[in-house]
Amino acid sequence: MAPQTERIGFLGLGIMGSRMAANLARAGFELAVWTHTPGKAAAWAAEHGAVAHDTPAAVAANSDIAITMVVDGAQVESILLGEHGVVESARAGLLVVDCSTIAPVDTRRIGAALADRGASMLDAPVTGSSPRAEDGTLTIMVGGSQDDFARALPVLEAMGKLIVHVGELGQGEMLKLINNSLGAANAAAVAEALLLAEATGVDLDALVEVTSAGSGASAQLQLKSAAMRSHDYTTFFKTDHMLKDVRLCLEEAQRAGVPFPAAGHARDLLSAAAGRGFGQEDYASIVEPAEGLAGRRLRG
Amino acid sequence: MAPQTERIGFLGLGIMGSRMAANLARAGFELAVWTHTPGKAAAWAAEHGAVAHDTPAAVAANSDIAITMVVDGAQVESILLGEHGVVESARAGLLVVDCSTIAPVDTRRIGAALADRGASMLDAPVTGSSPRAEDGTLTIMVGGSQDDFARALPVLEAMGKLIVHVGELGQGEMLKLINNSLGAANAAAVAEALLLAEATGVDLDALVEVTSAGSGASAQLQLKSAAMRSHDYTTFFKTDHMLKDVRLCLEEAQRAGVPFPAAGHARDLLSAAAGRGFGQEDYASIVEPAEGLAGRRLRG
Repeated sequence: MAPQTERIGFLGLGIMGSRMAANLARAGFELAVWTHTPGKAAAWAAEHGAVAHDTPAAVAANSDIAITMVVDGAQVESILLGEHGVVESARAGLLVVDCSTIAPVDTRRIGAALADRGASMLDAPVTGSSPRAEDGTLTIMVGGSQDDFARALPVLEAMGKLIVHVGELGQGEMLKLINNSLGAANAAAVAEALLLAEATGVDLDALVEVTSAGSGASAQLQLKSAAMRSHDYTTFFKTDHMLKDVRLCLEEAQRAGVPFPAAGHARDLLSAAAGRGFGQEDYASIVEPAEGLAGRRLRG
Repeated sequence: MAPQTERIGFLGLGIMGSRMAANLARAGFELAVWTHTPGKAAAWAAEHGAVAHDTPAAVAANSDIAITMVVDGAQVESILLGEHGVVESARAGLLVVDCSTIAPVDTRRIGAALADRGASMLDAPVTGSSPRAEDGTLTIMVGGSQDDFARALPVLEAMGKLIVHVGELGQGEMLKLINNSLGAANAAAVAEALLLAEATGVDLDALVEVTSAGSGASAQLQLKSAAMRSHDYTTFFKTDHMLKDVRLCLEEAQRAGVPFPAAGHARDLLSAAAGRGFGQEDYASIVEPAEGLAGRRLRG
């Protein structure tokens, strides 16, 4: 089926969702939209040539593929399984694609409820910040059946660049949680390394330059070392959200009986950062409890 | 002073040292050499147009800049301060450049002993494996005075590409230890992430592809995930050597009163890998104790 013959529903027009949906509109998809804030969907629809609806159920009734992009599992659950939710219009042939980051266990439960109504589901969480959502260059990791993946691919390609089928339903989420937990673990190591370097008199510019070219290099070193050094926690990704993802990852790890101590250490530091009031700021604030432990503060 | 007017002594013609010294010969430096294995220096000297000597002291007597490149602090100590060591020929104007990776506290002690004889010292440990030693593209991090750094730079430029002055004597070593400890911490996180991903059914090729493009990316993910998955520990950098560097880093951290828990976790895993008999194999064997903890083995 050519992409433009699928009618798309988009649920959740926040910072990420509005940009992702705009790329679908640009690609010529017929688009039905809903978002939680009253009035917002209508304004967005008018601007982008879409049709706004009052409920997720109404969006799903007018879509072949319904995409959700919201902030947590409770919102996904409410939109898909709640009153006036997608499940009320679910039918054979409806494909739900959840791009939110939620617990894999919730994904599987929601998928089962949709399957009872004949609808199928993919989990397709994304990485990349709002500029990459805007450019349509997100990374999208997809769990679910091969057939559903093939069907959704032209739609996903309008929003992302690297799109990978990673396994069964829920495993897109699992990969996302593992990626973020790896990031958090590496960020903890960067914070501690910066503190040790400064305490021992190593020039921090030199540390970052040399380490970036060596075996200690990481995306976190590139993304967060400057923010840690300046204590500038302008939000790219909130401490509370990173903490949520690492916690979900550790819950899945416990369920699987596979410890992840490096992520556990990051969880403790993120938890302490949130406790110090940095929950709504960027997770570069992981450096704050590391500084507390070391009894010194980075001078930059 | 143009580089070729400085006479260079090179002490230690192992896998790294022989390649680094060859680049100095190629660059036109007058070269005096010694290495621990009897007869080896003479053969090397004949091949590269250098002059072999029987002792480090004799090399130093015929050099303006004496470079050491050996495997640990005990060897550096023996070559520089031992019987027939460099210190016996040390004099004002002699500059010792130690490219080995040793404890910063040892570097400072050796530097003080050389200073008593009027000689000065730089620590200049390198990163990059033997192919980069061969190409002259090592990264070299240098501790010591600005004047000594400026004097040594033309010599270092014949062996390395990224050459950074990072602080006082000993701080090149400190940065090297921090880089390797960051690498070890990131490697521990990669091993644990692979185990969790496989246990939860995530495709490992997809994990590596997606994570490499995301916030969980690291040099260790690129360098070691394939080796961990195949349990192929063909040596690039031995577990024992990585363990030594992380231990030295943690000793310095303790001295500075700055904890480095991420590296402490890596130390425990590397220590367990060495205990399982992987000390002489590559430190990708850090996955072995992680597997033991998880009670499962990566299938790849």
